[in-house]
Amino acid sequence: MNGAQALIRTLVDAGVDVCFANPGTSEMHFVAALDDVPEMRGVLTLFEGVATGAADGYARMAGRPGATLLHLGPGMGNGLANLHNARRGRAPMVNVVGDHARAHKRLDAPLESDIDAVAGTFSAWVRRSLSPADVAADAVDAVAAVSAGGIATLILPADVSWEEGAAVAEPRPSRPAPRVAPPVVEEVAAVLAGGEPTVLFLGGNTVGEDGLLAAGQVAAGTGVRLMTETFPARAARGAGLPDVARLPYPPEVAMKALAGTRHLVLAGATAPVHFFGYPGVPGHPVPEDCTVHVLSEPGEDGVAALRALADLAAPGAEPQLLEASRPELPTGPLTPRAMSAVIGALLPERAIVVDEAITSGVGIMELTSGAPRHDWLALTGGAIGDGLPMALGAAVACPDRPVIGIQADGSAMYTISALWSYAREQADITTIICDNGSYAILQHELSRVGAAGDGERAAKLLDIGGPGLDFVSLAQGMGVPATRATTAEELADQLRTALAEPGPHLIDAVLR
Amino acid sequence: MNGAQALIRTLVDAGVDVCFANPGTSEMHFVAALDDVPEMRGVLTLFEGVATGAADGYARMAGRPGATLLHLGPGMGNGLANLHNARRGRAPMVNVVGDHARAHKRLDAPLESDIDAVAGTFSAWVRRSLSPADVAADAVDAVAAVSAGGIATLILPADVSWEEGAAVAEPRPSRPAPRVAPPVVEEVAAVLAGGEPTVLFLGGNTVGEDGLLAAGQVAAGTGVRLMTETFPARAARGAGLPDVARLPYPPEVAMKALAGTRHLVLAGATAPVHFFGYPGVPGHPVPEDCTVHVLSEPGEDGVAALRALADLAAPGAEPQLLEASRPELPTGPLTPRAMSAVIGALLPERAIVVDEAITSGVGIMELTSGAPRHDWLALTGGAIGDGLPMALGAAVACPDRPVIGIQADGSAMYTISALWSYAREQADITTIICDNGSYAILQHELSRVGAAGDGERAAKLLDIGGPGLDFVSLAQGMGVPATRATTAEELADQLRTALAEPGPHLIDAVLR
Repeated sequence: MNGAQALIRTLVDAGVDVCFANPGTSEMHFVAALDDVPEMRGVLTLFEGVATGAADGYARMAGRPGATLLHLGPGMGNGLANLHNARRGRAPMVNVVGDHARAHKRLDAPLESDIDAVAGTFSAWVRRSLSPADVAADAVDAVAAVSAGGIATLILPADVSWEEGAAVAEPRPSRPAPRVAPPVVEEVAAVLAGGEPTVLFLGGNTVGEDGLLAAGQVAAGTGVRLMTETFPARAARGAGLPDVARLPYPPEVAMKALAGTRHLVLAGATAPVHFFGYPGVPGHPVPEDCTVHVLSEPGEDGVAALRALADLAAPGAEPQLLEASRPELPTGPLTPRAMSAVIGALLPERAIVVDEAITSGVGIMELTSGAPRHDWLALTGGAIGDGLPMALGAAVACPDRPVIGIQADGSAMYTISALWSYAREQADITTIICDNGSYAILQHELSRVGAAGDGERAAKLLDIGGPGLDFVSLAQGMGVPATRATTAEELADQLRTALAEPGPHLIDAVLR
Repeated sequence: MNGAQALIRTLVDAGVDVCFANPGTSEMHFVAALDDVPEMRGVLTLFEGVATGAADGYARMAGRPGATLLHLGPGMGNGLANLHNARRGRAPMVNVVGDHARAHKRLDAPLESDIDAVAGTFSAWVRRSLSPADVAADAVDAVAAVSAGGIATLILPADVSWEEGAAVAEPRPSRPAPRVAPPVVEEVAAVLAGGEPTVLFLGGNTVGEDGLLAAGQVAAGTGVRLMTETFPARAARGAGLPDVARLPYPPEVAMKALAGTRHLVLAGATAPVHFFGYPGVPGHPVPEDCTVHVLSEPGEDGVAALRALADLAAPGAEPQLLEASRPELPTGPLTPRAMSAVIGALLPERAIVVDEAITSGVGIMELTSGAPRHDWLALTGGAIGDGLPMALGAAVACPDRPVIGIQADGSAMYTISALWSYAREQADITTIICDNGSYAILQHELSRVGAAGDGERAAKLLDIGGPGLDFVSLAQGMGVPATRATTAEELADQLRTALAEPGPHLIDAVLR
């Protein structure tokens, strides 16, 4: 058995059985070994940023590591932005990065670069497999290292793949997340009993169904306000769950949302900070006289901590739950809000929404809050270009659930070739392009930062309307059926049709 | 004057006046300052890999640094693959990478990542500007550091951009490349006088017109064979120059090309190594009993060294020059060789050819060798996806010269949004897509590496034909006029038309 065969078999035994790949010469034995281990599903992408973003979306929905296969340093580099997003969202992931054969390494061949150094910047675990005899054990360590989230990067020299002498290694039993010690819960309960204005700030693993219901019980029994981080990796939403607002993105609005708060209790989230610093604005929205308490750190069992807190601070309280409700289908001009209303009106049960709408998602949270239960994936690390790939990964993880991507136009272009993989996999994904012909958020930011110049040359660097991008043409060029909607009615009709048919669809929503 | 204004003015004064940009929030003051320094041309790209590849192509043709503007770590990550290619080709480049404001840095905001560590892997020079008072001097150092090639990365905190208190700094006079010491030339002349089988191996700055003519004189007077590295950054070619073969890419063919060579004299090139290691194949093509001599290192004045060698070893010898000649226009099926013949038959004078044809460029070197004088840009670092962006940069550097991109289909998809920038800039670029519906080189490599599996699952990861990519649709979706050629005659007609009209054109050459 060669190294590649042992590696793939070991990964499959450890529960890692989907690999988003963009291989090159140094990965050819890994590719060949896919025929020996048919349980490993290889999903081809045309660009590594699609592979890493898909692994991110897959991990968020499958709750198990997604794997990638990347070609040396440059291939890993192409995947870096979405590896960043995955790191910030604590998605479990195993990257296999092919490298030169050991004897070739010192020759400084054209593709030589410092893979280890770059991998170290985003990985919780990095190892270079140095012998076929070790590679399976290395893979076991990689999977174990990310059981509570994080990225493991296994650098795989080509000859470690191709040489014989490898053997499959046993997976390690998965280790449950650590529990929060009871005194921590008691201390938070005491804070809540004080009756001062308090926000229970949820994130990470506490914004699933169980966490939200426990938090709802705490709120019902103590009067604390619930809030989630601005961009949770995966949030359960819809009728039957507590209504939990997100911390808003704009600094001033976020500061207003937390104004008067005396205690901020973190559950699975870190203390909020603004995305960017601005002249004359504090770096975070937490009021100066607010004390921050940590109920659970990311990676700890936050749901158990919330349940313990509910038992202690709000025994028997009934959480207030959202009634089923949908907006009316709008008519007329296709404004961003009308787009959000159409989505809210038609969102199917068990949908997975991948949200990279950026500025175009006006009212989207409120207009979908009473829709049937669904999951919502947000951009965790701020590196745009994760939306289209994440939808691919989510669809691969959950082939029986409809995936809806709400995708800003500028962001779509970073990883547009994801559409080709949609078509190839016949993934059930409906992509709605928020087509406003600009980097609208940057036009907003240009004014925000207090920059003096608002002249023509600056504006030209933020305008993507010249020439206009024809997303229908782009989608069709990659095998995805596509239509264009210019009114609310057209969007509703096209969305209904797209959701009724299996496979990928793209709707270019021309916003005004 | 704020930091951004001083930075841009200083760059312009130092001769860096084109910036390929994909900015974000942290770069908004740089963007705003473009209105204050109109001599700096900002070229918007939709993806950072296009910006870095364009800066590479620009630098190769302009002979001055291209600049990029990138958004924090993830934006730089998106540009990493083409930064790798630029590094391997020694293109001079100045990256400006925006970062969080200094006070925001420690808050670990979502976009926080280790920019410095990643930049260190590809940059010859890295600095973080820590004050508006320093930023202009930092820019001067950056430009000076890459005067002989290489990448300088200046990390620019947002508040260093926006704060006042900056001042323009004077550029440093450019420093000529160091000269090779006379004893080195004499030693090589002595080797040549020995009359043993010798190859003069050219690369880097010696494959321009002057270097080739001097090398041709050496060959005429001494009988040494001339050869260039496999993928020179920029090679002068065509009628009136010596006929210098490239070292072939496949290991066995490269070894054959150098078989029997007793002395390999390097001029501007490093000693050749194979792109990849293969089971049972040596890592490089240099015969065991061959001695390697260094006439000039990359970065030294290789042309002066070749001239000195010519004076010493071959005084008065007349180089053998290529006669003007073109292949006949082929007819019938559009094979890769027919495509090459069409290009050879129609290549206009002073064309810039950007070659990322990979496996499809069958016979292209031989079929264009007698064409009118042109420059040829190759993929220096092996990271595919540089072709489309490099053509953009070359066209910006040389607006009066036609640019022809010969582009493999799989490679095109890494940076396909370059086409949008072609349309926006109305760049005079004709892109010929070598459309064979596969990663043909990997199908070849899969057999090469001796991998056993050639089963269906492995093959599926190398086939990009399902669904087929419609490059006409993709190009039109980004505003580039496009046609499809399925015969040699159609390709010739369409290429003639495209070359006759200004602005970008794409031809999808469906190869069989």
